[in-house]
Amino acid sequence: MTLPVTPADVAAAERRIRPFIRRTPLMAIDGAPLGCDAPVSLKLEFLQHAGSFKPRGAFANLVGATVPPAGVTTASGGNHGAATAYAAARLGLKARIFVPAIASPAKIAAIRGFGADVVVEGARYADALALCEAYARDSGALALHAYDSRPTIAGQGTVGLEWQQDLAAAGAGIDTLLVAVGGGGLIAGIAAWFAGRVRVIGVEPAGSRALHAALQAGRPVDVEIDSVAADSLGARSAGGLVVDIARAHVHSVGLGEDSPLGAAQKRLWRELRVAAEPGGAAAFAALAGGAFRPQKGERVGVLLCGANVDLDKLAALVG
Amino acid sequence: MTLPVTPADVAAAERRIRPFIRRTPLMAIDGAPLGCDAPVSLKLEFLQHAGSFKPRGAFANLVGATVPPAGVTTASGGNHGAATAYAAARLGLKARIFVPAIASPAKIAAIRGFGADVVVEGARYADALALCEAYARDSGALALHAYDSRPTIAGQGTVGLEWQQDLAAAGAGIDTLLVAVGGGGLIAGIAAWFAGRVRVIGVEPAGSRALHAALQAGRPVDVEIDSVAADSLGARSAGGLVVDIARAHVHSVGLGEDSPLGAAQKRLWRELRVAAEPGGAAAFAALAGGAFRPQKGERVGVLLCGANVDLDKLAALVG
Repeated sequence: MTLPVTPADVAAAERRIRPFIRRTPLMAIDGAPLGCDAPVSLKLEFLQHAGSFKPRGAFANLVGATVPPAGVTTASGGNHGAATAYAAARLGLKARIFVPAIASPAKIAAIRGFGADVVVEGARYADALALCEAYARDSGALALHAYDSRPTIAGQGTVGLEWQQDLAAAGAGIDTLLVAVGGGGLIAGIAAWFAGRVRVIGVEPAGSRALHAALQAGRPVDVEIDSVAADSLGARSAGGLVVDIARAHVHSVGLGEDSPLGAAQKRLWRELRVAAEPGGAAAFAALAGGAFRPQKGERVGVLLCGANVDLDKLAALVG
Repeated sequence: MTLPVTPADVAAAERRIRPFIRRTPLMAIDGAPLGCDAPVSLKLEFLQHAGSFKPRGAFANLVGATVPPAGVTTASGGNHGAATAYAAARLGLKARIFVPAIASPAKIAAIRGFGADVVVEGARYADALALCEAYARDSGALALHAYDSRPTIAGQGTVGLEWQQDLAAAGAGIDTLLVAVGGGGLIAGIAAWFAGRVRVIGVEPAGSRALHAALQAGRPVDVEIDSVAADSLGARSAGGLVVDIARAHVHSVGLGEDSPLGAAQKRLWRELRVAAEPGGAAAFAALAGGAFRPQKGERVGVLLCGANVDLDKLAALVG
């Protein structure tokens, strides 16, 4: 079976979006303090424009597309909204972003800062999505799905392409990648790129396991969301395209019920001076907190995918 | 005239310290928003162990050296103290660190966190240095100078060596590097490595211009310190070895009297999600604030050298 997004789709997306995104660097760190006997490869994607990986998917939707006069619209827990607003501004397009009330003030401020029209309404992502879809129907605006569309997935997959190329240039390789999962666009894109050549592991907080439920059921199913990372990872269900790819190429890991995300954020700040948001720290938390245990000699990569954190909250956390 | 530190000294230091430090990555960013018509190369040295470049110099002093039973001691505005404490812990050595009262609580906590014995006494760096020297005489402990010794300078110079190698591997080059200056160990090491092959520009806040004064006088002279970056850049005079190197290979630029450091910290957070300390933002401030104006086509590098900032202060600054 051909998957909905192929390595060629990811490579094509990379060529389209290259002028508009940052090629974020890798850094190898000592694996021993994380229980690895090989160095750990960090991909510093939090340095991307708008503070997360999301502009990759947004630009992949918009570059070369015919956008109606009403511009673009999307619904977003925050990061995809900021990314869509950023991409629209760079490309000279109008943008209206529907944001659920759960979104952090930092993210709402960032979206407004990029000049988009922001509508804060609805308790959860799904509510904002319904409003966005109605607006798209009425106005003709181009709606960008936060995770479940081919260009979005292909765009996010460019994280994997860069990772592979930059490791190869450094003469290094990788066995396993840890990637945070919300609706699953990012991990689907990365898994589509690698197509089984490396082990891709999706990390979900205990109260936000839409991908796990979908892999169990064989299709997207609704889950209840209750997580400190809900504002970035709290999709109520994984996407259908996402699940098609994930069933072929993604393993799922859940974090514990305690607060490994806070502990991971604290450690990322203390040991690396990286100010990660809870969702952006999830992949690191799987390794640091022991939910994922590497095998002997396993070369592990950890994606640090977002830093749209309120600094005063992070300050209180790290103490 | 042979300079006190040669490119071969820097290369030898790099071989000694390589197992103990992080090879921090470069990231190219769009130069246009910074007034450059070529991409700007950022070196992300704030990701170094202990949150600044300083462990390079500390390890260069200690790896392969015979250290007395009393261990090591140093006086430090904070970052060198944290780095010395970190390096001592990694190498199993005792450390006593003399810290002036101006040091930030985050830095003092970091030094203690590495297990060192911390003495907070004296208003300024020079006072802490006098106490440290007396302790070294009495105890026999090995005193590490924060900036004015050959191994310290050679160790910090490895920043330049990595920068050159990693640019070359990416098929890129550089014309000019912007580097923050306190006592001058970092810029002296980088200038010693490049030995005139690139333009190395030292950036000093308005109220902390020891290198500028030394280059004017042709020798180290005392200056008054009054800067928000005093806890990291506030050396009362540049080092003698530093000045010998700087006279040959360093240009000096001062920042304005307004607060370009705060504006640069704000911009680094908003546009890059980098949480820099004031001194760590100084080189970026020279470009972002216009104190340094690039020529047409000039390929500029900016060293982000420290992130030991109190997050609550940064939160208040970025708003």
